[in-house]
Amino acid sequence: MLKTNHTEVAVIGGGIIGSAIAYYLAKDKRKVALFEERKIGSRSTSAAAGMLGAHSEYKEFQHVYSFARSSQLLYKELYHELKEQTGMDFEMKKGGLLQLAFTSEEREERNSLMQLPAVEWLTREEAKRKVPHLTDQIIGASFLKEDVHVTPAIASNSFSKGALLLGAEIYEFTKVFSVVNEYSHYKVNITQGSFTADQVVIASGVWSNYFFQQTGLMNAIIPVKGECIAVLNDQLPLVHSIFHDQHYIVPRNNNELIVGATKRWDDWNEEPTLEGIEMVIKKAKEMLPSIQGMRWLRSWAGLRPQTFDGFPFIGEHPEQKGLYFAAGHQRNGILLAPGTGKMIANLISGNPVNSEWVEAFKIDRLPSAVSIGRG
Amino acid sequence: MLKTNHTEVAVIGGGIIGSAIAYYLAKDKRKVALFEERKIGSRSTSAAAGMLGAHSEYKEFQHVYSFARSSQLLYKELYHELKEQTGMDFEMKKGGLLQLAFTSEEREERNSLMQLPAVEWLTREEAKRKVPHLTDQIIGASFLKEDVHVTPAIASNSFSKGALLLGAEIYEFTKVFSVVNEYSHYKVNITQGSFTADQVVIASGVWSNYFFQQTGLMNAIIPVKGECIAVLNDQLPLVHSIFHDQHYIVPRNNNELIVGATKRWDDWNEEPTLEGIEMVIKKAKEMLPSIQGMRWLRSWAGLRPQTFDGFPFIGEHPEQKGLYFAAGHQRNGILLAPGTGKMIANLISGNPVNSEWVEAFKIDRLPSAVSIGRG
Amino acid sequence: MLKTNHTEVAVIGGGIIGSAIAYYLAKDKRKVALFEERKIGSRSTSAAAGMLGAHSEYKEFQHVYSFARSSQLLYKELYHELKEQTGMDFEMKKGGLLQLAFTSEEREERNSLMQLPAVEWLTREEAKRKVPHLTDQIIGASFLKEDVHVTPAIASNSFSKGALLLGAEIYEFTKVFSVVNEYSHYKVNITQGSFTADQVVIASGVWSNYFFQQTGLMNAIIPVKGECIAVLNDQLPLVHSIFHDQHYIVPRNNNELIVGATKRWDDWNEEPTLEGIEMVIKKAKEMLPSIQGMRWLRSWAGLRPQTFDGFPFIGEHPEQKGLYFAAGHQRNGILLAPGTGKMIANLISGNPVNSEWVEAFKIDRLPSAVSIGRG
Amino acid sequence: MLKTNHTEVAVIGGGIIGSAIAYYLAKDKRKVALFEERKIGSRSTSAAAGMLGAHSEYKEFQHVYSFARSSQLLYKELYHELKEQTGMDFEMKKGGLLQLAFTSEEREERNSLMQLPAVEWLTREEAKRKVPHLTDQIIGASFLKEDVHVTPAIASNSFSKGALLLGAEIYEFTKVFSVVNEYSHYKVNITQGSFTADQVVIASGVWSNYFFQQTGLMNAIIPVKGECIAVLNDQLPLVHSIFHDQHYIVPRNNNELIVGATKRWDDWNEEPTLEGIEMVIKKAKEMLPSIQGMRWLRSWAGLRPQTFDGFPFIGEHPEQKGLYFAAGHQRNGILLAPGTGKMIANLISGNPVNSEWVEAFKIDRLPSAVSIGRG
Repeated sequence: MLKTNHTEVAVIGGGIIGSAIAYYLAKDKRKVALFEERKIGSRSTSAAAGMLGAHSEYKEFQHVYSFARSSQLLYKELYHELKEQTGMDFEMKKGGLLQLAFTSEEREERNSLMQLPAVEWLTREEAKRKVPHLTDQIIGASFLKEDVHVTPAIASNSFSKGALLLGAEIYEFTKVFSVVNEYSHYKVNITQGSFTADQVVIASGVWSNYFFQQTGLMNAIIPVKGECIAVLNDQLPLVHSIFHDQHYIVPRNNNELIVGATKRWDDWNEEPTLEGIEMVIKKAKEMLPSIQGMRWLRSWAGLRPQTFDGFPFIGEHPEQKGLYFAAGHQRNGILLAPGTGKMIANLISGNPVNSEWVEAFKIDRLPSAVSIGRG
Repeated sequence: MLKTNHTEVAVIGGGIIGSAIAYYLAKDKRKVALFEERKIGSRSTSAAAGMLGAHSEYKEFQHVYSFARSSQLLYKELYHELKEQTGMDFEMKKGGLLQLAFTSEEREERNSLMQLPAVEWLTREEAKRKVPHLTDQIIGASFLKEDVHVTPAIASNSFSKGALLLGAEIYEFTKVFSVVNEYSHYKVNITQGSFTADQVVIASGVWSNYFFQQTGLMNAIIPVKGECIAVLNDQLPLVHSIFHDQHYIVPRNNNELIVGATKRWDDWNEEPTLEGIEMVIKKAKEMLPSIQGMRWLRSWAGLRPQTFDGFPFIGEHPEQKGLYFAAGHQRNGILLAPGTGKMIANLISGNPVNSEWVEAFKIDRLPSAVSIGRG
Repeated sequence: MLKTNHTEVAVIGGGIIGSAIAYYLAKDKRKVALFEERKIGSRSTSAAAGMLGAHSEYKEFQHVYSFARSSQLLYKELYHELKEQTGMDFEMKKGGLLQLAFTSEEREERNSLMQLPAVEWLTREEAKRKVPHLTDQIIGASFLKEDVHVTPAIASNSFSKGALLLGAEIYEFTKVFSVVNEYSHYKVNITQGSFTADQVVIASGVWSNYFFQQTGLMNAIIPVKGECIAVLNDQLPLVHSIFHDQHYIVPRNNNELIVGATKRWDDWNEEPTLEGIEMVIKKAKEMLPSIQGMRWLRSWAGLRPQTFDGFPFIGEHPEQKGLYFAAGHQRNGILLAPGTGKMIANLISGNPVNSEWVEAFKIDRLPSAVSIGRG
Repeated sequence: MLKTNHTEVAVIGGGIIGSAIAYYLAKDKRKVALFEERKIGSRSTSAAAGMLGAHSEYKEFQHVYSFARSSQLLYKELYHELKEQTGMDFEMKKGGLLQLAFTSEEREERNSLMQLPAVEWLTREEAKRKVPHLTDQIIGASFLKEDVHVTPAIASNSFSKGALLLGAEIYEFTKVFSVVNEYSHYKVNITQGSFTADQVVIASGVWSNYFFQQTGLMNAIIPVKGECIAVLNDQLPLVHSIFHDQHYIVPRNNNELIVGATKRWDDWNEEPTLEGIEMVIKKAKEMLPSIQGMRWLRSWAGLRPQTFDGFPFIGEHPEQKGLYFAAGHQRNGILLAPGTGKMIANLISGNPVNSEWVEAFKIDRLPSAVSIGRG
């Protein structure tokens, strides 16, 4: 139960989005309580590889690339700030990302991306100098120098520990069943009882869908399940991440490679299947053929929260003042967490926020005539 | 999502209680759908040692010993029935249980227990012939021959698999947020959407508390967390379970011993702590001193659903017809699962049920003047 | 260190072969010490699925089918005997094995097998009545009713625990470096020091190769690595094992399926690779297509000890009296353990042993002109 | 098997000592082959907390503090060097170590230590400002600023990966049975066969004992088993390691605390026991009382290789030229690995080595009249 039965802001969900929100709110001197059904940074957060792919997802971000990029840049200062405060190190790993191109069409699709200063084109030979075991089938690769990666579970716990040090209350193993508007405040019903909050932020990933529906919003958040594996690299080291067509190979500190990920629409089961693992191995071999001889470590799955247009819902409910959503970050939750945390904190504090972002992420936006593909 | 958007009976909770209910309902040819937030038989069910302690808990059962005993006896037929149907074997392990007595007071408290045919008194020497490494500090032990044990996670999955074969639908990774009475039926809201059911059975262990409160019932279900460890017995075999003062050592098929359990009131955190583990080791050494040299395997914790008088809530809601509860089985969920499953099936089908049980377990019973101790 | 510095028989290796030998020797009232580098029943023993395939391997056994069959039958009495003594249950699971036939050639190759009383031919329809999800691509299946299975790690530990109860000494975490013939006895050098034994039995699976070479035997024992996976069967139950072309799907008590196994010659690495896992999934899907939707649990690998002709080496060294080998059981170690244990005990005690078996398994037999294929 | 059947230097043992030796030899352009029975950096290396305790062990190091200190300093350059080359990050974590003092006697024993520039005395209040939850029972603490720590398994793998990049051959899953002096070279017998080497370095930790004995050295290396646990710190962050009387609490990147360690003499079993875990918890509570409420994660054990005087054996065999030992580093293997690797490389290359170190570590030194205590 809460230390008192009231808090200023209640954040529902202790994944990386909720953790970042709690951190930025606590920095703004808000009295925050964070509620997580299981453990901080578990489930979809832990399942992520942690790539900060502001450029690898450039095409998808469209006019909100600036949001993605600013969130990516926030990680640089957060790394030192949170390490200093919490003693934790979320392993921001340099090396960047090689986005492979197998055809000249793929090369051409990236024309505008290639104009950006953090992006460089590598010929096949140049790419293979960076990753000697890379497939011979590519024509080249975009080298996205700033698309580094972090270890998501640690990043999420760094945020929540940082928030704790700034006075936030963190409640794990606490399940929220409903959020009820009681005029001057919200009543939040949890397994243990209930408490009240002036503001509520729903940041429960795909499980936000229920609250969404309950508050009369028409939009849905559905899962796109991703299956991943980890392998032990007993061959030459891999310093750069490799990426193609939503599949990736990401090196960790300890010689492990994180390899993912499938895309299964509307599958709520959080465990990997045999066919998912088969697909992940197949795609990894296309990028790095020698990976087939590496040793198996483990497999897992996570649910990406998908929205109709691929952009997250970040904003206040149009009718219920004080009720915010920050969910639907799809496969970019790790990248967008600092930006989301800062934006929510600014919205709650009444600070100015880039109006283009507000518009792009508003939670009652309508689907355009053309719905998003399953790209 | 459901195959259709309506079912006859919705069971909320896929622990051993919910699984047994689904099985008995399916045997009664009900169209059943079982909803489990994680995996069948996980959490508190998996955390249990699986002792069928109708006699070791004799004092606590009081006038409903007959219910406990009949549930214990149901396991004998279920073992063969479910093995035959599902190919699964929930490892009903003979050997019974030695309930140690360290003082003559403890011996005397068991006078009425000792009258029962399945119970035998062993002197210290007789007890040590059965378990040579037993502590010398006892004066003797009650030998409860029929308090055998099962492997709870397998038992729970056997029930759900049996139900599946009889036509039930099993939905794992499906979270229920609310159950709404809509006159002729109930609307059940899940993450994925909603569906309707003629009857609903809440069997969510301690997490049933929320639904309880929501339907106007005054009683609470609170957790009594139990911390356990498993050790590898590299010494002489242990054929019998050992029990004293709610602490136990239970042998599994594979030479592992399950050792438990602490009692932490109102602790919702599902992971063991250092002090809990210290306590479990201390108590185990009091019973079996040589266990201190055995090898560590792992630790875990589970939440026992505790009610004000120690009896479960099994029955229909007094005002909301068609809404049933089957929760609050405290540390006896495994033992009481078949009895509970059968009772709920009979209540729903309108078959006769022992009126003493109905009375003892009814969900709106009032606390007597003297509340239950934390024994 | 040993309790004394001398033992009658030293058994080197605590897998299922060494454990069974220790058990049968202890039953013969020999003073036995068993030495295992890691833990009893780990490595190749734990990696095995546990099928007792006297008939599924009928073609390979040739003239020593009688040995395989008698070992299979020994399990029936051992199951009750060891359960009684040790309280352990190695889960001998009925249901037998369906050996699939995809072509009429496969059917014909089994003509002599099909004459045996424990074997029955099933048409495709009959086979699919037993396993509804079986592939449609088969023409039928041999139903090998007595090729049941056990859980290998538990079986191995039951043997060693049984031996312990009969007075044997069991030393885990004890590495043997060399065995030196000192005329009247053998000196066994272990990490901790050394001790002497009248007789020594090398039962170290593929790692026996070193001792083999050191004692002047020309034959080699090489690994054939097998990679396996476990999956959670959340579909209809599987009661029978399924087998084809050295690949299998074996159901355990708890709803898990054990799926294996690749054959990698001369690979000493004990961990699975991505390509191995890919192959196991591919072959499993050919037998049971719906398995692709089942949930991943884990993967592992084990080293089968392969000999030049596929038969184990069981017997006394031709020159060094008192030095025995029992190794090279290839993929049939679990099946042949009781037979091997009994045979070694009989050889050491001077009891009669089937001369055909002695001949077939003698450790200095010569390769015939035609060497064994890699079938 | 080796790519060729001869190598210049064979290193036996792939823990952190053997890995560091291989790395420094490869840097010296030696043709090196490293043999590891299991996996690089497993067993005792993985079991270590990774403290670089040149100062916390100051009293024990006596006249070879300079060796410990120089090895500690080598880590600073290695960190960047190996990260650059291999992409791996062995997590050298700043924060230093608080060596608690509970009595004024403890304070006085450290008089000479306290003279060193990297050491500072903290009063109780100062210590508690650094670690607020620290026990009130201390009178103060030595703050050892440079006794930082690394993650041992990653450090070991960084060394071996670095060696691989410099041309070394790494053989995991390869067991060495014997090393035979064949005049001009050594024959090394492995499970797979044999090969020859000009020089051999035995770096097998406590398992070096066998080779020691075989080559006529009188000294023994015996295990001092250490049992450890990991806990999840869900309280305030811990930035500094805490140390007292060989027990410690060390924070990792990810909010885990590594807590150890018992000292069990001559226990070769590599798994923790219940009494060991009890002791570790008890000692941790004496240092940081609130740790008792933290969550359990896991437990393990490792074998420290202990010598008669507490100093490692590093040097050439007095009679068998070209045979080197580098073992017996007791609880300081991680700290001393770079120094040992460099010293062995220098000895083999004929480069000058500090004569005091050579003398202190020579492998045939005799015990003095007063043997080392079990401090």
